[in-house]
Amino acid sequence: RIDGARLWDSIMEMARIGPGVAGGNNRQTLTDADAEGRALFRTWCEAAGLTLGVDAMGTMFATRPGEDPDALPVYVGSHLDTQPTGGKYDGVLGVLGALEAVRSMNDLGIRTKHPIVVTNWTNEEGARFAPAMLASGVFAGVIDLDYAYGRTDLDGLSFGEELERIGWKGDEEVGARRMHAYYELHIEQGPILEAEEKEIGVVTHCQGLWWLEFTLTGKEAHTGSTPMPMRVNAGLAMARIFEMVQEVATGEQPNAVGGVGQVKFAPNSRNVLPGKVVFTVDIRSPEQEKLDRMRAEIEKRATTICEVLGVGCAVEPVGHFDPVTFAPDLVATVRGAAEKLGYSHRDIISGAGHDACWAAKVAPATMVMCPCVDGLSHNEAEEITPDWAEKGANVLFHAVLETAGV
Amino acid sequence: RIDGARLWDSIMEMARIGPGVAGGNNRQTLTDADAEGRALFRTWCEAAGLTLGVDAMGTMFATRPGEDPDALPVYVGSHLDTQPTGGKYDGVLGVLGALEAVRSMNDLGIRTKHPIVVTNWTNEEGARFAPAMLASGVFAGVIDLDYAYGRTDLDGLSFGEELERIGWKGDEEVGARRMHAYYELHIEQGPILEAEEKEIGVVTHCQGLWWLEFTLTGKEAHTGSTPMPMRVNAGLAMARIFEMVQEVATGEQPNAVGGVGQVKFAPNSRNVLPGKVVFTVDIRSPEQEKLDRMRAEIEKRATTICEVLGVGCAVEPVGHFDPVTFAPDLVATVRGAAEKLGYSHRDIISGAGHDACWAAKVAPATMVMCPCVDGLSHNEAEEITPDWAEKGANVLFHAVLETAGV
Ligand SMILES: NC(=O)NCCC(=O)O
Ligand SMILES: NC(=O)NCCC(=O)O
Repeated sequence: RIDGARLWDSIMEMARIGPGVAGGNNRQTLTDADAEGRALFRTWCEAAGLTLGVDAMGTMFATRPGEDPDALPVYVGSHLDTQPTGGKYDGVLGVLGALEAVRSMNDLGIRTKHPIVVTNWTNEEGARFAPAMLASGVFAGVIDLDYAYGRTDLDGLSFGEELERIGWKGDEEVGARRMHAYYELHIEQGPILEAEEKEIGVVTHCQGLWWLEFTLTGKEAHTGSTPMPMRVNAGLAMARIFEMVQEVATGEQPNAVGGVGQVKFAPNSRNVLPGKVVFTVDIRSPEQEKLDRMRAEIEKRATTICEVLGVGCAVEPVGHFDPVTFAPDLVATVRGAAEKLGYSHRDIISGAGHDACWAAKVAPATMVMCPCVDGLSHNEAEEITPDWAEKGANVLFHAVLETAGV
Repeated sequence: RIDGARLWDSIMEMARIGPGVAGGNNRQTLTDADAEGRALFRTWCEAAGLTLGVDAMGTMFATRPGEDPDALPVYVGSHLDTQPTGGKYDGVLGVLGALEAVRSMNDLGIRTKHPIVVTNWTNEEGARFAPAMLASGVFAGVIDLDYAYGRTDLDGLSFGEELERIGWKGDEEVGARRMHAYYELHIEQGPILEAEEKEIGVVTHCQGLWWLEFTLTGKEAHTGSTPMPMRVNAGLAMARIFEMVQEVATGEQPNAVGGVGQVKFAPNSRNVLPGKVVFTVDIRSPEQEKLDRMRAEIEKRATTICEVLGVGCAVEPVGHFDPVTFAPDLVATVRGAAEKLGYSHRDIISGAGHDACWAAKVAPATMVMCPCVDGLSHNEAEEITPDWAEKGANVLFHAVLETAGV
């Protein structure tokens, strides 16, 4: 068994870095707060006797040696970055749960055949720089390194510059490491486990996603003196696209979602009709067919909406992954661990994207989930119980030990 | 006759300060660029022998003495601040047209009975700080000075602090001056004069306005793992309100407009449903009844839209003026000047708000308009011809001379 109290204390200590405004965290990737969080995590890794490597995307790999010099490591991790108004557990539980697993191995004198590598992936959230899971995407060879470096935030700062600025651009080639397996513990971020009173989610799949960045071009004009028929109103086109996305996602129920989280109006003045409106549509489904159909439908209908209003419409995908099926033997290992520990569990499909989704491209991978209160995440009020955290970390511990070989 | 070439040169010289990104200007109120523009204007006023006074709202009053020591001054002016992506003529033509009028009086050795005061009102645009026409509103006693000082921009900076920072908080009590009359020359900002090939607009009225700032409260949540039925989607409510405003304004055609220029999403992350959405609805009509009906209808329907989605809805009016009727005798003076000069003209209702609308509360006031290309304004591509500017300034010159008494 892992030490639940120590795990909880570490989570609370990390939560002091980059505090939010409502009890959560703002420790966005490549900010000073992120650098501070990384430094604390490094201290803990060193204290646990781990050896740290950092790759050129800033991902941190802390290794506990194995007994077999030829065996590939088992990677276990998640991310320490947060949303601008994020919770204390999203990502953090997975990194510190992995750390707790090796701390417990140390305490219990457990040696494994395969090395264990506790991992903190850079920019999982995608809040500052789209897409999400950027570093694991480059690691898996799905995203180009230069593309990643060139991504910019709303202030125009680039990922590459910011990574250098905070001093965490490592010298390891991204993706050069080979994995025996990859495990990730994460809060569910949805309502199912809590509603069904299950302690553990055995994650079999992850739903796929498209982030479609729309750039609508209207005609900047005076809101007072420009007659209604003369307007080329990009804001109105945006409104119609929002409503249409809602309709399309609703029409694909169940197993589909669609919405918009980010909007930029320009010049954003009360008495100027916007000349440029940029926003990102987020659509997801675990069914490939639905995901493809929604994207096609949304792009087609958006084109018509904009044509009617005379508004220019450009769409750039800025995030994408297809639905993922996790490695059946690792999934069985997680299920077995939950059984053995006597925890209630159910199979579950992840609604959010995770670094495990990209790791699954290059190694057998899966995840362990624990419930969160009201299914709420990406909200400072995100909450879990110490008991849920401990049980999740225990399942992770046993699954990793099984795969790493005691 | 005024000197059209000198007027045009001055406009072009002012346009060098706070250049935009597409040939226009970004000289927003109380920025460093605004301070630079004010300094240039002061130099010109001093060179023309005018005496400068500045009130506690930063409004600049440059006086050319009259022959009768007891006669109240005729005020002539507009504003030098611009939109973030504004044109070179909106406001500037009116201030520099007034300056050109006194320069011409100097050249021609004309003495007037009443003093002439060339005026540059602070924050006419309302782009950084709502409402528009803020300083003239305080001058007219319609807006409270402390309320004005407390207005904040999107970065949270206050009007009062920024006015002190740029060093233009004067010591004159706001509104202490008494006016014999107020004239303002301005570009039409709409399509009518150009379409009808009229050189001069004789402004009889100005349409009324409401700026309704909506604050919608949703529930921040993950865009991927939050099922559609669990969402409290403030972005969707906003979209429905945009569409509804369009519908309400369309239903009141002609003589009504409605739209949205400013939007703020929070936390504005691609994978977070917004917890807070703030935007300003701009509605206008020259008919009081329509203006009132639109406001009531929009607030009522917005409430229903939000209730259906479970979204919180608060509305704060951040700008308002009722439709204005300008002083008939001054209007006749402008019409007479256009006639005398042999310029084509028509009566016109201003679609935009102007400092003249507030001046009309405390003195007889009216405006002179000249056409602008394609009716385009609040756009860096805003354009007029030197001929239009000269004719507008000539009408202003003659109307002012008539009212000031030669
Ligand atoms: N787990 C999580 O919130 N990841 C962010 C990427 C996503 O939007 O799914
Ligand atoms: N003239 C002008 O653009 N004034 C700004 C105030 C308004 O929005 O009407």
